[in-house]
Amino acid sequence: MSLVIQKYGGTSVAGVEDIRRVAARVAECARAGNSVAVVVSARGKTTDELLATAHELSPSPPKRELDMLMTIGEQESIALLAITLNAMAVPAVSLTGAQVGILTDQEHGKAKVQTVATERIRKELDNGHVVVVAGFQGVTLENEITTLGRGGSDATAVALAAVLRADVCEIYSDVDGVYTADPRVVEHARKIPVITYDEMMELASLGAQVLQNRAVQFAKRYSVPLHVRSSFNNTEGTMVVENYENMEEIFVSGAALDEDEVKMTLRGVPDEPGIAARVFGAIAEKNINVDMIVQNVSDEGKTDVTFTVSNDDLSDAKRLTEEISSDIGAEGVHFDSGVAKISVVGVGMRSHSGVAQKMFQALADNGVNIQMISTSEIKISCLIGEDTGKKALKAVHDAFGLGGKQA
Amino acid sequence: MSLVIQKYGGTSVAGVEDIRRVAARVAECARAGNSVAVVVSARGKTTDELLATAHELSPSPPKRELDMLMTIGEQESIALLAITLNAMAVPAVSLTGAQVGILTDQEHGKAKVQTVATERIRKELDNGHVVVVAGFQGVTLENEITTLGRGGSDATAVALAAVLRADVCEIYSDVDGVYTADPRVVEHARKIPVITYDEMMELASLGAQVLQNRAVQFAKRYSVPLHVRSSFNNTEGTMVVENYENMEEIFVSGAALDEDEVKMTLRGVPDEPGIAARVFGAIAEKNINVDMIVQNVSDEGKTDVTFTVSNDDLSDAKRLTEEISSDIGAEGVHFDSGVAKISVVGVGMRSHSGVAQKMFQALADNGVNIQMISTSEIKISCLIGEDTGKKALKAVHDAFGLGGKQA
Repeated sequence: MSLVIQKYGGTSVAGVEDIRRVAARVAECARAGNSVAVVVSARGKTTDELLATAHELSPSPPKRELDMLMTIGEQESIALLAITLNAMAVPAVSLTGAQVGILTDQEHGKAKVQTVATERIRKELDNGHVVVVAGFQGVTLENEITTLGRGGSDATAVALAAVLRADVCEIYSDVDGVYTADPRVVEHARKIPVITYDEMMELASLGAQVLQNRAVQFAKRYSVPLHVRSSFNNTEGTMVVENYENMEEIFVSGAALDEDEVKMTLRGVPDEPGIAARVFGAIAEKNINVDMIVQNVSDEGKTDVTFTVSNDDLSDAKRLTEEISSDIGAEGVHFDSGVAKISVVGVGMRSHSGVAQKMFQALADNGVNIQMISTSEIKISCLIGEDTGKKALKAVHDAFGLGGKQA
Repeated sequence: MSLVIQKYGGTSVAGVEDIRRVAARVAECARAGNSVAVVVSARGKTTDELLATAHELSPSPPKRELDMLMTIGEQESIALLAITLNAMAVPAVSLTGAQVGILTDQEHGKAKVQTVATERIRKELDNGHVVVVAGFQGVTLENEITTLGRGGSDATAVALAAVLRADVCEIYSDVDGVYTADPRVVEHARKIPVITYDEMMELASLGAQVLQNRAVQFAKRYSVPLHVRSSFNNTEGTMVVENYENMEEIFVSGAALDEDEVKMTLRGVPDEPGIAARVFGAIAEKNINVDMIVQNVSDEGKTDVTFTVSNDDLSDAKRLTEEISSDIGAEGVHFDSGVAKISVVGVGMRSHSGVAQKMFQALADNGVNIQMISTSEIKISCLIGEDTGKKALKAVHDAFGLGGKQA
């Protein structure tokens, strides 16, 4: 008997018929003799609608109260799925994050999971129940309700799979796997059958919105095998694993475009030791994730420091960066949200030279100007103008022969 | 400084503008220097919509899962009201039933409050916060989410007022007080300025749906002064108190119609000692409230036992009564949901004779046939055909001169 964790996204449980389809799939897995725990997100547009109402009532709703509001979306989903499973004669019980015991820190809106209790879930599984768990939510030691931030339901699923030592964690959504590029932009993008945690993490953080980065990190740390697949069909999706055969032969696995970044530049920063640490220390303290960082060469004792953050953090980051600017005696701050980040990812890159050059050439040939460059062992990213993003993605995808037709 | 508990019903927080109006009223009370705890129900039709979706997915959803589903309605309301209050610069914090510590038994769908913790609320009030509490919901010792049953938000408000020793518990809804009869049926019904707990309890249980019976019982036991009023205007409503001046002069305070009853008859029951105890013991065990009970005189060692239950309990009561019928060797069970109960209530009744006769005469004069009669010290109820209900209410209201114009 296997223990299977399944996670269904919001579009998979949007309508009554969708919930029935998900329930049928869960029932099939349970009837095959598996122990099953299911993690679900809020239905369809629920979260967006709740947010819109909150903003109608307040320009800046307290994050604690937003978490109180948002978490009802998942609570609705788990109750309705448990009701449907019971109607199909599959004994099921729904549990909120608090009831499971998903303990987080107090960072409302993007809390981090600290521990996950297993007692209650184990008891229900041992009693032959399918356990339906609310994704995205947790609870602090003081019994305050928190949310795990964007894509937090993936984190919930992987955390459960890790503490319960599940045999597989299946991530269901409306896409049937990880692609060499976003198929909505690049027509002949190809589904990747197997990919490493490292590659997946780079792709996730780079805008291939299939799986949340944190969830993949967690899966890597606890060696949880992930299966990314569609809830609308039965085709095999993408397996995410530690490593696979012939890793070095495929030197670029995929290309991704992230249009959700903002470029912030601190101008005329005094070029002294410790300045970067002060700037990014203050930003980290506020739990704002910085992505790319570039510091230009010094000119007459002054330098420009440029970095990118997510659009979500813009207002916080803006206020903070302006404070920092005057603290450190910089000349001012400049913001630009008209940017996009284009990246290629592949573990094989480590042992192949010329990948960066090939990417830059493809962008140049298509008239795409590069504003910033950042590289890691398995990734190369370029910040470009937002209006050239889609063109750049197609160009890079073609240049590395990632498409189904060229392969 | 006074401690005020305010409770707002679902229609008071239905739309965004309604929530703003309620917030303004709460803010006014807080700015006047009072400590304020607010209890809110689910918005408008939310509960009905959630129930409808649940029933689309299952013919008989498990009660535990229905509670999981229903409680999101109040959680939405408290978050939105707290967000609005904070936007008005009134520091406010929302709390679920579980966070307050409203401990109940395990009877999902109609749980009874066992204890209410005061620590968390006191802490928030001491910090100068308005506390916004989710009505209708509680939590068991095992951390299971429960609901208190119909009108449970009133029970939440009164329980809080009792444990916090509040100066007043204001119950806001879309009606501005308790009337001598339902103004939608009886045009010249009159608002009652002051009424006793006992009268209010009889009126509540008899279908004047302004306040839940249990809430009034609780208020009486802990001497919580209730003020029933409208959230749409500032007029004084009805005060519910232990007693008032000249109580005996007003011998009938109001008349009520309950169209939500079902009549059940056990036919041919063996006329032996202990039969009634067995029948109603079994029903009470299942937590089904029986209202009127009538046993006819015995005929050849057999008798008929008739009683009424709420429509909500019909399917449970039906199954159970059929079991009981075969257990005790009765001849069968007969159901009739085409009935209504007409009642008059008044503490003055104790010292006035002829009230019953006057009521029966009024019904007779209007061609209303009486099927069952039941009386208490301060109430007379008659079960009649549902189609004659509204006519009967008007007739009785007129006969006792309860209307504004006759008074």
